[in-house]
Amino acid sequence: MRLVRPLHILKNPFSQRQTQNLARRGLSGAAMRLVQFKRLSDGGGGEVRVGVEQGEGLDVVDLKAFDPSMPSTMKELLELGDQGLDRAQRAVASGQCVLKRSDVRLLSPILNPEKVVCVGMNYRDHCLEQNAPIPKEPIIFSKFPSAITGPYDDIVLPSESQEVDWEVELAFVIGRKGKHIKEEDALSHVAGFTVANDVSARDWQMKRNGRQWLLGKTFDSFCPLGPALVTTDAVQEPHRLDIRCLVNGDTVQSSNTDQMIFNTQTLIAWVSKFVTLTPGDVFLTGTPPGVGVFRKPPVFLKRGDVVECHIQQLGSIINKVV
Amino acid sequence: MRLVRPLHILKNPFSQRQTQNLARRGLSGAAMRLVQFKRLSDGGGGEVRVGVEQGEGLDVVDLKAFDPSMPSTMKELLELGDQGLDRAQRAVASGQCVLKRSDVRLLSPILNPEKVVCVGMNYRDHCLEQNAPIPKEPIIFSKFPSAITGPYDDIVLPSESQEVDWEVELAFVIGRKGKHIKEEDALSHVAGFTVANDVSARDWQMKRNGRQWLLGKTFDSFCPLGPALVTTDAVQEPHRLDIRCLVNGDTVQSSNTDQMIFNTQTLIAWVSKFVTLTPGDVFLTGTPPGVGVFRKPPVFLKRGDVVECHIQQLGSIINKVV
Repeated sequence: MRLVRPLHILKNPFSQRQTQNLARRGLSGAAMRLVQFKRLSDGGGGEVRVGVEQGEGLDVVDLKAFDPSMPSTMKELLELGDQGLDRAQRAVASGQCVLKRSDVRLLSPILNPEKVVCVGMNYRDHCLEQNAPIPKEPIIFSKFPSAITGPYDDIVLPSESQEVDWEVELAFVIGRKGKHIKEEDALSHVAGFTVANDVSARDWQMKRNGRQWLLGKTFDSFCPLGPALVTTDAVQEPHRLDIRCLVNGDTVQSSNTDQMIFNTQTLIAWVSKFVTLTPGDVFLTGTPPGVGVFRKPPVFLKRGDVVECHIQQLGSIINKVV
Repeated sequence: MRLVRPLHILKNPFSQRQTQNLARRGLSGAAMRLVQFKRLSDGGGGEVRVGVEQGEGLDVVDLKAFDPSMPSTMKELLELGDQGLDRAQRAVASGQCVLKRSDVRLLSPILNPEKVVCVGMNYRDHCLEQNAPIPKEPIIFSKFPSAITGPYDDIVLPSESQEVDWEVELAFVIGRKGKHIKEEDALSHVAGFTVANDVSARDWQMKRNGRQWLLGKTFDSFCPLGPALVTTDAVQEPHRLDIRCLVNGDTVQSSNTDQMIFNTQTLIAWVSKFVTLTPGDVFLTGTPPGVGVFRKPPVFLKRGDVVECHIQQLGSIINKVV
C-alpha cells in the first residue's frame, strides 16, 4: 500500500562551503530530513532524540550521539537557528553515529509547539466540492499541541464522536521568530515542510460547540505529523506537490498543492500580523477535496481503518484507527 | 484607583503536619500565592524565577534562592506536583530569602502553557445582556500562549483592529495531568486560581475569519494574567467571588462568579473528554456583562486607557492600553 520512494539520499551532503553558496531560501541552506525518534534498543521508552534521516525510511544519524552538546528535541534544535542546522549537517557529513532503521521508532518531528495554526477552506477544489465561495482572507483556527501524534501512531476514535474524518495537509514548521513578517521574507522563517492529517470530528466541528471548530479538531491523536521535517532547501517547489490520502489503500483525496488559495508566504505574513511566530510553530495549510463528510452518502472512519497521507518529496504518514 | 486589600498574609503558614490534616481540595493542601517574577536589581532582564507572595503586593520568597534545586518556572514547579508545593511551603516557613517587593517585577504566574482554554457565554447575566439563550453545553475556544502578558504589562492595540474590548474572567491553572476526569475529582487537578482579561478584537471575532473567534482573541498581549496563582486551598468558595472590571477607574463590569453557568469542576470534566489536561494549562472561565461591544453606543479601548480586572481574594491586574 505504501507509495513511498526514498527521495533525498544524502550520504554525501553539501559541504559547509557549498551550503553557504546556495541561494538561502530556508533557514540555513541545509537540505536534510530531520526526525525525532526513540531507540527501540532502549525498549522504546527512552528519551526523545533528534536525528537526520538518510532518505525516507533509511538509516538515521543520531545527532546527540555525534555531539553530546546537541539538543534532544527538534524545538531546541530550531531555536539554535542556522547554527543548529549547520551542526546537524556536520554530523551527517561525518558518516558516524548512524542508527539502523530497525532500531528507530519515529515520533512526530515536532512536539510541544507553542502553536498549531490551521487553515480552513484553502484549496480551490475543496471549496468547489462544498459549493463554498473562495475565501478572500485565510480562515485561521487551531488545534492544541496535545493532539499531535507520530507518523505511524494510532488515531484514537473518541466515543464522543460518530463522524471522524480525514484531511491530508501540507504542514510547515517555523524556524525563526518574527512578527509582521513580509511575504518576501517569509520563506526564511520556515524550517521545513512535513505531512499532516487534520483529523476532524465533523459532528463537533459543524454542529456543536457554538460552531467553533476547536473541539472537533483537537481530540487527542487528531494531528498525526511526519515522517520527517524536510528542510526548506530540500523541497523543490512546495506549491507544486502531489498530495493524496488513501483509506485502506483506496485513494480518497488526490490533488496538488498548486490548488492552495493562500500559499506558505501569504499565510506567514497574515498570521504574523496577529501573533509573534516562534521556532517550532506548526502550520497546517488546508486540505484538498475528497473528505468523507461531503461524500454522498458521507463516509467516516471506523476502527481498523488505515489512513495514509502522502505528499510528493515529503513522504507518507500511515495511521491505524483504533 | 486600586481596590486591593492584602488578603492572605502567610508569614507563618501551616506546618507540614497541619497541611496534611486539611481536607485536600486542591493539589497539596498548600495555601499560597505563587508568583513568577524577575529581580529589578538584575536590571529587570534576568531570568524568570518562582516565588511566594506574602500577601497581595507584599514581599516575595525567592524559592530558588532558598533551594537552588527548585525549578525556575511555575510550569516546572507544577510538574513536581504535591512535592513541589510542599517544598515551596518549607521555603516560606523558613522566613529566609525574602525579597523586598520593590525589587520584584511580577510576570504572568504561568508562561508557555500547552493550552489556553477559553469558555464563551458562561455567565447567565452576560447571556441576558446580548439576548442569547443560556448554553446547554460549554462553548470552548482558545488563545495561543503567545497572547499571555504580565499583570501590570501593557495591552498593545493592534492597528488591524478598531474594536478592542475588555473581559474580566476568573482563570484557573491545571496542576495534575488527566483525561476523562470526573467532576468529583476535578478540583484535585486545579493548582489554583488567578485573574485574567480576555481582551477581544470584536471586529475579528464577530465579523471576520469565518466567524472563528481565535484571531480576534489572540493578538499578542491579549491575555493579561495574574497577579498570583492563588492555590486552591487558599480560595474560599471560588464560585462565590465578586468580579469586577474598571476602565479609567469607572466600573464597567461587576458581577459574582456565582453567575457562572458551568463551574470549574464541570469545565474540567467537559474539556478532558476531548483532550489530556496537563500541568500549566490555563482556563479562562468566561466574562460577566458590561463589555464594551454590547453598550449603546458600543465603547472600545483606546490608547492611554487603564483597565483593572479585580476578583475578590485573588487581587487585581492593571494594564495600560498603548
